[in-house]
Amino acid sequence: MVKSVGIVGLGLIGGSLARRLVGRGVEVVAWNHNEKPYAVARQDGITCLNTLEDLAAAKPEVLFLCNPLKVMPEMLQRLAPVLDRNTTTLSDVGSVKGMVRTQVEEAGLADCFVGAHPMAGTEFSGFAASDPAIYDNALWAITVDETTDYERFLKVAALITESVGNRIIVLDNKTHDRAAAMISHAPHVVSTAFINELSASPDRNIAAALAAGSWRDMTRVALTDPDRTRAMIEEDADNVEALLRDLAGRLTSFADDLHAHDDAALTRFFEAGQPFRDYKLRERESGESGVSVESDESGDIERIAIDIPKSGWQQTFLDSARRGEHIVRFIQPWQVEVEKRSAV
Amino acid sequence: MVKSVGIVGLGLIGGSLARRLVGRGVEVVAWNHNEKPYAVARQDGITCLNTLEDLAAAKPEVLFLCNPLKVMPEMLQRLAPVLDRNTTTLSDVGSVKGMVRTQVEEAGLADCFVGAHPMAGTEFSGFAASDPAIYDNALWAITVDETTDYERFLKVAALITESVGNRIIVLDNKTHDRAAAMISHAPHVVSTAFINELSASPDRNIAAALAAGSWRDMTRVALTDPDRTRAMIEEDADNVEALLRDLAGRLTSFADDLHAHDDAALTRFFEAGQPFRDYKLRERESGESGVSVESDESGDIERIAIDIPKSGWQQTFLDSARRGEHIVRFIQPWQVEVEKRSAV
Repeated sequence: MVKSVGIVGLGLIGGSLARRLVGRGVEVVAWNHNEKPYAVARQDGITCLNTLEDLAAAKPEVLFLCNPLKVMPEMLQRLAPVLDRNTTTLSDVGSVKGMVRTQVEEAGLADCFVGAHPMAGTEFSGFAASDPAIYDNALWAITVDETTDYERFLKVAALITESVGNRIIVLDNKTHDRAAAMISHAPHVVSTAFINELSASPDRNIAAALAAGSWRDMTRVALTDPDRTRAMIEEDADNVEALLRDLAGRLTSFADDLHAHDDAALTRFFEAGQPFRDYKLRERESGESGVSVESDESGDIERIAIDIPKSGWQQTFLDSARRGEHIVRFIQPWQVEVEKRSAV
Repeated sequence: MVKSVGIVGLGLIGGSLARRLVGRGVEVVAWNHNEKPYAVARQDGITCLNTLEDLAAAKPEVLFLCNPLKVMPEMLQRLAPVLDRNTTTLSDVGSVKGMVRTQVEEAGLADCFVGAHPMAGTEFSGFAASDPAIYDNALWAITVDETTDYERFLKVAALITESVGNRIIVLDNKTHDRAAAMISHAPHVVSTAFINELSASPDRNIAAALAAGSWRDMTRVALTDPDRTRAMIEEDADNVEALLRDLAGRLTSFADDLHAHDDAALTRFFEAGQPFRDYKLRERESGESGVSVESDESGDIERIAIDIPKSGWQQTFLDSARRGEHIVRFIQPWQVEVEKRSAV
């Protein structure tokens, strides 16, 4: 059981995490690039320190980097000479994992690092908007690679299941970032391409006048801050590029099939996504999005125990995530309990 | 002022239109392919007839085809020999206009036809779901071509502004269908391509687990009935094909620019849609979507009168629609009053 956690950056994600951990009996030390949140944070029981170096010197068992990604290299370079690697395991909450891992390696901190990405947040930012409840029922992706030390992984993973009270899936960086490209980064580009298409049309006011729900949904994320969208996409550039080429190919093929009146090909196109339609239907029928589960006869969520092998544990975790399972606790260091969720 | 209207098909759109017109003092005669809605429709004051031929024989001044598009050729062929073209102007409410116009021409009815498409509807269908209020504050596209008779156009257009109480824009078929491809048909294809992409991925359950708002919005329309989506796209095939090729080109260019780290090109991509972002921002600041307007100093909607030339009236109307103006009434046969709406 992890007793002390350090937080770099008391923004929405870091501040909410700090407050949640304090509320669950974990000692939290924090540093923020300015002292604005300190008065309120201290009332919440968070120990606020003057410098990043002081935070390293406090030797928390796990130190979460919750700073913006653009200052990650600077944070890592400042931590490298002062972090007590024997005591402290380094983690982060960034939304892209490959780039952060590379920066961690460049700072010489790879041996004590385990990546993390909580599926939590709101449209607001800053400590004033922080709320421990943004982690209610949240899922975290924990990212590991072939060199990750299992003891350190276990420290971060069990902290999240036990003290944050959340579910986890364990992925390699590439799998995480490829999935993020599909479910977030590429949709942002496509949505932007649509508003570009409309803006360039001499009939833009006519199109805008005729627009209804499908246009509104398709273009909503293109209305968010384009600078933030661009930064997010450039951080995951390789995966976004590959996916956009694939999507462009799908759209061109569909245009070809439409041109050729190829009935069979058009039928295949509209059938190919049926597994996802069926999945969403099951999810809707079983209740809330994101909490749907396969049930055993008693109506409870089906939970099973999975043994983790000492060699190849990364693959065992990845296979479990691919089956749609979420880890809810560590029964023992090499055995987890997972929820069997409805799968695509 | 049109005193009698015929309705073919008492579904959601036709039934709601019939009830709205009766409520505003217009005599309405109707025929439906079965008599299920007749008992209730008659209580609402709609004269229900036994056959389509009886409806033609009733000689309404305007006859709206509100049947499903797939039976349009059959309806037109049955009407051709019995319609009194001197008395009756034919119109429709279909969501694609080029295909319907071609079918009308094939049936030899082009000389008495004026196309129409109301921006109205709900997720339900059938007369039981009909409601005159679905036309509250609605916009109609009226479609005309070089051969359209102005008197017939005026009959349909003024019926909608005066007796349905709605705004109109006047377009050619191609402009209407190209806009529909942009704001509805192409988004349906792109949304489907995304769920196909996910369904084909070995990491589909991981992607689904990480998915949040941007994925939900991007893929919502792909969850609607794929057969209906396919039919809608095939009815507007040429425009959808052209737009998808254009979008595929935009996505490929973006992938190239991302690969080349072409800062200037990426900046251009994210700036190109700014006119639409600004438009949506003004719309949000001024209140409800779809009712935003440029205001004069008194805070009222700015309305202006536009003279319509006897030669080239189609182009004058199209230019007005392109400026974001909506026609609210005919001051005289060759002069309209338009609302000047906020433009992209």
